[in-house]
Amino acid sequence: MYFVFFVGTAGSGKTTLVKTFNDYLRDQQMDSTIINLDPAVESLPYTPAVDVRDYVDAYEVMEKFGLGPNSSLIAASDLVLTKASEIKEEVEQLESNYVLVDTPGQIELFAYRETGRMLASLIAGENKRAMAFLIDSFIAKEARSFVSMLLLSSSVKFRMDMPTINLLSKVDLLTDKELDLINSWSNGEELVDSLGTIDEYSYELIKLLVESLSSSPIPVSSTSNVGMDMFYAELQRIFAGGEDFLTEEGNPTL
Amino acid sequence: MYFVFFVGTAGSGKTTLVKTFNDYLRDQQMDSTIINLDPAVESLPYTPAVDVRDYVDAYEVMEKFGLGPNSSLIAASDLVLTKASEIKEEVEQLESNYVLVDTPGQIELFAYRETGRMLASLIAGENKRAMAFLIDSFIAKEARSFVSMLLLSSSVKFRMDMPTINLLSKVDLLTDKELDLINSWSNGEELVDSLGTIDEYSYELIKLLVESLSSSPIPVSSTSNVGMDMFYAELQRIFAGGEDFLTEEGNPTL
Repeated sequence: MYFVFFVGTAGSGKTTLVKTFNDYLRDQQMDSTIINLDPAVESLPYTPAVDVRDYVDAYEVMEKFGLGPNSSLIAASDLVLTKASEIKEEVEQLESNYVLVDTPGQIELFAYRETGRMLASLIAGENKRAMAFLIDSFIAKEARSFVSMLLLSSSVKFRMDMPTINLLSKVDLLTDKELDLINSWSNGEELVDSLGTIDEYSYELIKLLVESLSSSPIPVSSTSNVGMDMFYAELQRIFAGGEDFLTEEGNPTL
Repeated sequence: MYFVFFVGTAGSGKTTLVKTFNDYLRDQQMDSTIINLDPAVESLPYTPAVDVRDYVDAYEVMEKFGLGPNSSLIAASDLVLTKASEIKEEVEQLESNYVLVDTPGQIELFAYRETGRMLASLIAGENKRAMAFLIDSFIAKEARSFVSMLLLSSSVKFRMDMPTINLLSKVDLLTDKELDLINSWSNGEELVDSLGTIDEYSYELIKLLVESLSSSPIPVSSTSNVGMDMFYAELQRIFAGGEDFLTEEGNPTL
């Protein structure tokens, strides 16, 4: 089994992309299924094989513990961990080749807290895994925000310790000119030009970020279905062992 | 007037620190007042001079627009911007020397979206400003999480374009040994040792992050009052012009 975790900020289009990519895989006669890890989502365009809402209700958490909306979402995801053994058992019964994992938009779970990493380990077990990090086109079209999203992607990749594919989501909302500009930023120099005056540290940081991009983020759209082939090919490259990643013990492995 | 923005992840202790530092300044016979920018906070330990809850109610937004908890918090902060002229008018009537600004825990507003930067410009106008970035001790005591928080701080600093002081918050919850370890990480090598095997890009990124730290995060606690003198001294250094920062137009200025 191959696990693909879809991670991104709230509103970046994770849920619809999960549905679109699942349909794509099935159209190609591949066996694919979906896990929903978001305890606060109200309605889903797909039927998940495993759904954390069966275990934890974010709204109940909000009322029961008298927490504010943000704290209750964090708390709800932490509570999911307490249901670990039940969820693991359910996941182990899955027999699909591909398991697509939809995640909550509280990006701090994946960028700064241990919850995301623990959830991912729990779910993927010893199986190969990769992460699709969604960069919201609407945010990325401003140069500074694009840099922020690359920093966030680095942070999530570092925290989750998984091979990561950057996707530029919802590109149907971009004009061709905007898309060309974002692609050119991935080459570095033009990005720095778009930022105005920046301090030396930021310059070094951006240089490093751009150098670390193996390729531009892949433009995808769940509306026009663009980018699915390229995304799939990149996943193949990772699962075939083209990119090393580290186990939790820190040893290089396939 | 000097504006100090307190930014940090949910639960990092912004609100209590704002109260503690406000009390500290007043005890020193300095004129200080507080602005609350969090539309979703339920109760505050201080009385804000300006309160965005007078303009936007996050819970009303949640019900009115049928949004989930996270989206409604983002939407509520965006709505605050539509009340710009009224809020600006209120802020301009403040006559305090120091204005402490408490912010919502949706860190993406400050790290990835334009809302935080626009709010800050709106509020601080032409006045000098600095940012206190709170690194939650509870999160920071794990080496990878500490790196994540430094990345987040860089991202927020870059996005907000303000001189930034890193604070290690809630240090009363750390043992002396834990605090020593975190301090030693700010020197670099020991940090890398604590991370296990990491890839070359992560190594370069961490080296750059550590080099960019002008000093270790300042340990503070709202319970024991530790760190207020050092934090104040650092603010003085910034407001006295010791650290350049860039205006929105990208030109270096005081």
